[in-house]
Amino acid sequence: MSLPRPNPRFLARTKGMFTSQIRSYAAPGEGTVPPAKKRYVPTSGTYPLGFKVGSAHVGVKASNTRFDDLALIASDTPCAGAAVFTTNKFQAAPVTVSRDMLKKRKGEGVRAVIVNSGCANAVTGRGGIEDAISMGKVTDKCFIEDNNGEDDLKGSRSIVMSTGVIGQRLPIEKITSKISAAYYNLGSTHEHWLGTARAICTTDTFPKLMSKTFTLPSTQVEYHIAGMTKGAGMIHPNMATLLGVICTDAPIAAYALRQALISATSKSFNSISIDGDTSTNDTLAILANGAAGGQPVASTETQDFHAFQEVLTDFASDLAKLVVRDGEGATKFVTIRVTNAATYKDAHRVASTIARSPLVKTALYGKDANWGRILCATGYAEGVDSVIPEETSVSFIPTDGSEELKLLVNGEPEQVDEERAAKILEAEDLEINVRLSENKGYKEEAVFWTCDFSHEYVTINGDYRT
Amino acid sequence: MSLPRPNPRFLARTKGMFTSQIRSYAAPGEGTVPPAKKRYVPTSGTYPLGFKVGSAHVGVKASNTRFDDLALIASDTPCAGAAVFTTNKFQAAPVTVSRDMLKKRKGEGVRAVIVNSGCANAVTGRGGIEDAISMGKVTDKCFIEDNNGEDDLKGSRSIVMSTGVIGQRLPIEKITSKISAAYYNLGSTHEHWLGTARAICTTDTFPKLMSKTFTLPSTQVEYHIAGMTKGAGMIHPNMATLLGVICTDAPIAAYALRQALISATSKSFNSISIDGDTSTNDTLAILANGAAGGQPVASTETQDFHAFQEVLTDFASDLAKLVVRDGEGATKFVTIRVTNAATYKDAHRVASTIARSPLVKTALYGKDANWGRILCATGYAEGVDSVIPEETSVSFIPTDGSEELKLLVNGEPEQVDEERAAKILEAEDLEINVRLSENKGYKEEAVFWTCDFSHEYVTINGDYRT
Repeated sequence: MSLPRPNPRFLARTKGMFTSQIRSYAAPGEGTVPPAKKRYVPTSGTYPLGFKVGSAHVGVKASNTRFDDLALIASDTPCAGAAVFTTNKFQAAPVTVSRDMLKKRKGEGVRAVIVNSGCANAVTGRGGIEDAISMGKVTDKCFIEDNNGEDDLKGSRSIVMSTGVIGQRLPIEKITSKISAAYYNLGSTHEHWLGTARAICTTDTFPKLMSKTFTLPSTQVEYHIAGMTKGAGMIHPNMATLLGVICTDAPIAAYALRQALISATSKSFNSISIDGDTSTNDTLAILANGAAGGQPVASTETQDFHAFQEVLTDFASDLAKLVVRDGEGATKFVTIRVTNAATYKDAHRVASTIARSPLVKTALYGKDANWGRILCATGYAEGVDSVIPEETSVSFIPTDGSEELKLLVNGEPEQVDEERAAKILEAEDLEINVRLSENKGYKEEAVFWTCDFSHEYVTINGDYRT
Repeated sequence: MSLPRPNPRFLARTKGMFTSQIRSYAAPGEGTVPPAKKRYVPTSGTYPLGFKVGSAHVGVKASNTRFDDLALIASDTPCAGAAVFTTNKFQAAPVTVSRDMLKKRKGEGVRAVIVNSGCANAVTGRGGIEDAISMGKVTDKCFIEDNNGEDDLKGSRSIVMSTGVIGQRLPIEKITSKISAAYYNLGSTHEHWLGTARAICTTDTFPKLMSKTFTLPSTQVEYHIAGMTKGAGMIHPNMATLLGVICTDAPIAAYALRQALISATSKSFNSISIDGDTSTNDTLAILANGAAGGQPVASTETQDFHAFQEVLTDFASDLAKLVVRDGEGATKFVTIRVTNAATYKDAHRVASTIARSPLVKTALYGKDANWGRILCATGYAEGVDSVIPEETSVSFIPTDGSEELKLLVNGEPEQVDEERAAKILEAEDLEINVRLSENKGYKEEAVFWTCDFSHEYVTINGDYRT
């Protein structure tokens, strides 16, 4: 169902910056999800067996006196775990600590993901590393105590994530004192999952949660996959200020899990852009506990593995698209499809360059069919060989199923029906298709998802810390 | 003199988008320069001998019924000419045509630069190329007619430039019919230069013109250099939507002139960023006619050459800074100095990445000392080897001569005096200094000039075509 949406330009002009008041820097409380975003928040779900999730209120930011900002995702049994991290050279403490943990454990015997919002624990020196270790240790302790004090796994077993402002130390004692509360609140209902998804949010306007079921070729077992993510700004390939946790009860072994995650990330979380900034904290983690039964998937050469990889890629890209739906200040959801490239890398680079062009993004905000800017960005994409000006075509693909609107064909501008272009640009969703060279027989393609650049983006990011 | 400036946030909030009304898409008429920008418009100048400049009204954009939008810069005698062009793969017709002309003539026997604003003649196919050739030919014809019909130079001798909207054909007959009017209007007074600088503008709010005198080691002759530029958006290294013309009466031979221009461009027009978009039309041209006399500078090994190169680099960077002063929607002028890098390329890339980060730019607009975003951009600069997190330092250098404000020292955050930070950020001018590694003894440095990202930028670029 598509709800009526206010005209954002009208809002910007008449109400100044008041549209931004829905976005405060804290986990969004219940009832505060904007009407237009409610359709992205599920009212039920089918969650993986053997996982429990929960949250607690810490008040990491002193101004947050009400909303949960600590989240715990736990497997009932030790499970396989994998994660991909930011490529930013300034890696936040939890990134360093979680990467080390997974490496040491070889992705086996993982129990949980512990996440705080409100402070990123990034650029916090040696003290920050100790804080991240401490968050993991206190989480581990909950499992040991529950096991009658017996430490069956030895060493750290929890992935740690933090998100929020850079350069400030965590209020670590406040956080660790509440981890047992989050543990105590663990459960497996839809409300538990939604509450936990909400607790990891920062400037997000809605919690991002998805779940679905799937099967693998070798068995009749019904498997479940569920995931949550957060992030609305500082987002560009390599998963800026983005956290994500995916859980499945399929029996995927550690090595295969890691390979599937790396491959899925490239076509999902590394194919979205809000503003072109790549953050210090991005982490996408996956846990697989095999609680649903069936044959373990250990090799990457099996049919089961390929089937799982496909499921995970689709699931991760649907999850990533929710982040774009919540792009800071976004009024549009834009799919950029670059086809007929010589290589996937070329297609991906062109799509990424268009997605981060401020001029393309402001034109989309202004509902202006300014294909010249799309072409201009195509032309300055770095390190791309398959852009051939006289073979390049640009079209708008309407999302109502009507015919594509050709703007440029083989380097020659079309006589554009501006009225139809304006109508297409009225819709929230739009696909831009750039064909690089059909004549050369190039066939590689990449898809990128992005949003527009609005007055509200400037307001949100001019005001963020204050 | 620094004029009082309205608080831009106050304006954005109280008057909505009205601040943008000063910026229409046409050459700015007299009297419309914003008060805060008047100090950048010279009231007199010392111009190179043997050059005449003039303009005429065409009405390239039908809505422009009053302001000159055709500019002619001419040397009294055939002279040396050189130009650097956009690296965008979609090169506008005038870029192709001018590049070919200079190549054929080996940079010798050039007479003029002819420029129209209002339409970029970019992505206009074969017809666009013919239009650009035609602009050059009609200009050449003026010189031939003035020479009693004798064509002493043979072939094309005029550099052609166009700036404005992409993908529309020029109203070529309207333009060519007015070239003789621009020729007729040629003159060498300050008013001629200023009027011509005004005619090349598009969304600029003020004409950008500079002149100065210099000497060379081998002679007592006083030389002159003058230049004009335009551009306020679609600007990032490689000179997006940027046009510039520099003239000197020093006797620099074609080869030396080209080398000096390439080197000067790297540290001037290729070291500025408004929005990270690299356009299809950028051209920076230089003409040297030797009218002031003295020994010709033909070799790049002479003292005179090095002195000229230094003069040109300084002059071009002052000219480029005027473009940043007029950045679309800009309220700040920010110098980003990256020092202690292993290579100039590393320093330049880091500076460029900071300069184009929307999060850094919106924080600057919001007067927020959010150094985390500066560091974050430093960390995701691509292809840079000399970023070492634990040796990186970030400071604000106030422009009032007071002490630097250290934000991060060797990877550890400082206890920042937020009050002082806020005071520093109140000023229009700011320098951000990022030291990559002092300990390693790295010594390379690069400087980049940029502006902030404001509500007005979004307004201007959401509305540009309409």
